[in-house]
Amino acid sequence: MAFSFGFYNDIHTPTLLLDVSCAQRNIASMAEKAQKSGVRFRPHFKTHQSAAIGEWFREVGVDAITVSSVEMARYFAAHDWKDILIAFPANVREIDKINKLAQRVHLHLLVENATTAAYLAEHLVAPVDVWIEVDTGYRRSGVQWDGAELTTLAQQIDECERMKLRGLLTHDGGTYAARSKEQIVDAYTLTAQRLAAARRRLQSYGFEHLEVSVGDTPACSVLERFDAVDEIRPGNFVFYDWMQVEIGACTPEEVAVVVACPVVSIHPERNDIILYGGAVHLSKESLVQRDGRLTFGAVALIEREGWSAPLPDVWVRSLSQEHGVVHAEKAAFAALTEHIRVGDLLGVIPVHSCLTADLLKAYRTLDGERLTMAPSPGETGSLK
Amino acid sequence: MAFSFGFYNDIHTPTLLLDVSCAQRNIASMAEKAQKSGVRFRPHFKTHQSAAIGEWFREVGVDAITVSSVEMARYFAAHDWKDILIAFPANVREIDKINKLAQRVHLHLLVENATTAAYLAEHLVAPVDVWIEVDTGYRRSGVQWDGAELTTLAQQIDECERMKLRGLLTHDGGTYAARSKEQIVDAYTLTAQRLAAARRRLQSYGFEHLEVSVGDTPACSVLERFDAVDEIRPGNFVFYDWMQVEIGACTPEEVAVVVACPVVSIHPERNDIILYGGAVHLSKESLVQRDGRLTFGAVALIEREGWSAPLPDVWVRSLSQEHGVVHAEKAAFAALTEHIRVGDLLGVIPVHSCLTADLLKAYRTLDGERLTMAPSPGETGSLK
Repeated sequence: MAFSFGFYNDIHTPTLLLDVSCAQRNIASMAEKAQKSGVRFRPHFKTHQSAAIGEWFREVGVDAITVSSVEMARYFAAHDWKDILIAFPANVREIDKINKLAQRVHLHLLVENATTAAYLAEHLVAPVDVWIEVDTGYRRSGVQWDGAELTTLAQQIDECERMKLRGLLTHDGGTYAARSKEQIVDAYTLTAQRLAAARRRLQSYGFEHLEVSVGDTPACSVLERFDAVDEIRPGNFVFYDWMQVEIGACTPEEVAVVVACPVVSIHPERNDIILYGGAVHLSKESLVQRDGRLTFGAVALIEREGWSAPLPDVWVRSLSQEHGVVHAEKAAFAALTEHIRVGDLLGVIPVHSCLTADLLKAYRTLDGERLTMAPSPGETGSLK
Repeated sequence: MAFSFGFYNDIHTPTLLLDVSCAQRNIASMAEKAQKSGVRFRPHFKTHQSAAIGEWFREVGVDAITVSSVEMARYFAAHDWKDILIAFPANVREIDKINKLAQRVHLHLLVENATTAAYLAEHLVAPVDVWIEVDTGYRRSGVQWDGAELTTLAQQIDECERMKLRGLLTHDGGTYAARSKEQIVDAYTLTAQRLAAARRRLQSYGFEHLEVSVGDTPACSVLERFDAVDEIRPGNFVFYDWMQVEIGACTPEEVAVVVACPVVSIHPERNDIILYGGAVHLSKESLVQRDGRLTFGAVALIEREGWSAPLPDVWVRSLSQEHGVVHAEKAAFAALTEHIRVGDLLGVIPVHSCLTADLLKAYRTLDGERLTMAPSPGETGSLK
């Protein structure tokens, strides 16, 4: 098998390959869809965590972003982003960093309980926009869309001069349980209806001009228009991953990343290939495929153009700290091992690209360029 | 609730707390057990990945260590370790770094297939000790304990001047499926018998003085003596974790790490507490407890002395990238929320401390000292 992109022989350890054109197509397509619907596109940068990739968003007109931690907000603020939403319930223990950020950028916080709202009212030193996180049924964080707490929280926020109540925000993780476009659309429709009802209720209490922000990649990918919302915040779509393929949110061709893993052993007696590529590279995220198989990743050949389509009847059956065990049905194993030898690379399409990127901390483009990411908090000493 | 270890208020984000005395007791106890059995104690350093913690092993007489990657071997070689076993099937793509290490330290490699053995025979520039990895039934890497490949591989290695065949090595991950000491002992006994049989077979082919090395923390923890082996390589025992408690390999009091997580939300309507502490801090490792509950971690109060015993009927029911959702039975939730408010810290005893430490990249001791770890390969640029 002829491998010939220039740096193939330079890859010695599990390495996150990035198809730049594919990622840029994903970005352009989502930006265009948002524009057609007349909604703000505030992409979530927790997936890529990379200033270099952030610039590709800037090129399609994005100037407002979403992040999942104060540390990530600091990183992107340092890379000249001026309008940043931290889409995680405000953590009062980070008030000093929040205040520094609020003095420097247009900062948006998520609030979903009275204790946090009271703390912020007392300790904020600069103005911030506040979004009330609403739980439309996912049961993670957020006030219940139809509960009494929504209005009392809105009133509490409204009383604080430094907090401008900007709108209602939700993350509907429920779409991740879908396995078809129809299921995703149904889940999204219910979420949008509940957010609209919550907004109407606040309007009846005198809160006008509240915006609505939604986020999940499955819904943002399969819907053609976003009629009842003002802002979308998808993140994962920049790379997609095997989970999104299985959900029905993307095709395998739209997945922009693969982990190139050295083959360290082949076991024909049990149709297994052992990869250098384990939980510390891919994460232990798994999923049960439509075919009933539990997988820690799909498998592709590393090729001249990047990588092949996912191989049928081949999957990562288990992971330990550094090992990945690829298993194949008999015929698929025979076909695969005609090409693959110990010492070659095999590609793993990760189940969850956000977690894989967070672990590998760098990308190699198909031209061999190295793109870095935000450092781990533990390594910057920011624990202190 | 009175929190009073000095730096409690300095913890702003998910932070790995380390009880140094507890870890040192775990180290001393394992070292003593190895000494009593007359076996070499070659601890696996992949769990802690920290030069500072490595010194505690040196203090009890350890001078030979195990690591899981070439990068980790380089890190510990730089911290003056001279006898290093890389307990992962030799990755021929890293031959240059392997050769540099072999010139600098007493290096031990794992070989389990003819392709790798042939490559090493051709490319090694300095002598190494080689261990044949044997699969005694775990079905990850390794040659089958009773297969014909074992002897041909031994002969192949023996023909190479730079490779000294040192012995047979296994990792019996099968003990992780155990849920009692008896099951662990049974699994270990079978493994030891199979290794002994493999060694006898090689002896009959003229290979004398081969050593046997075993590794898993469950067996090394519950066995009193190691009679049929020459070396033990446990790693996880330095910290233990919730998985080892559930397996029966340790008590909760022997667990030396907890992740202190800020509480960002409390939902009494569904007995949930939302933590800042998700998959990028704890890893997505989960387990089904003996009580049938699927958990991503046990939960403890952060206290003056460190942390409490794990709270009964309280567990981490789900994780997303940054969120942890703690769920409790009704009475346990009521008791817990008498103490815990939004803005407090709650402790999570990780399911798998190796993966959690790898993600958090630093420790805080209960005295507030910060211990660092080996950097991520992605951040040191070592991908190139």
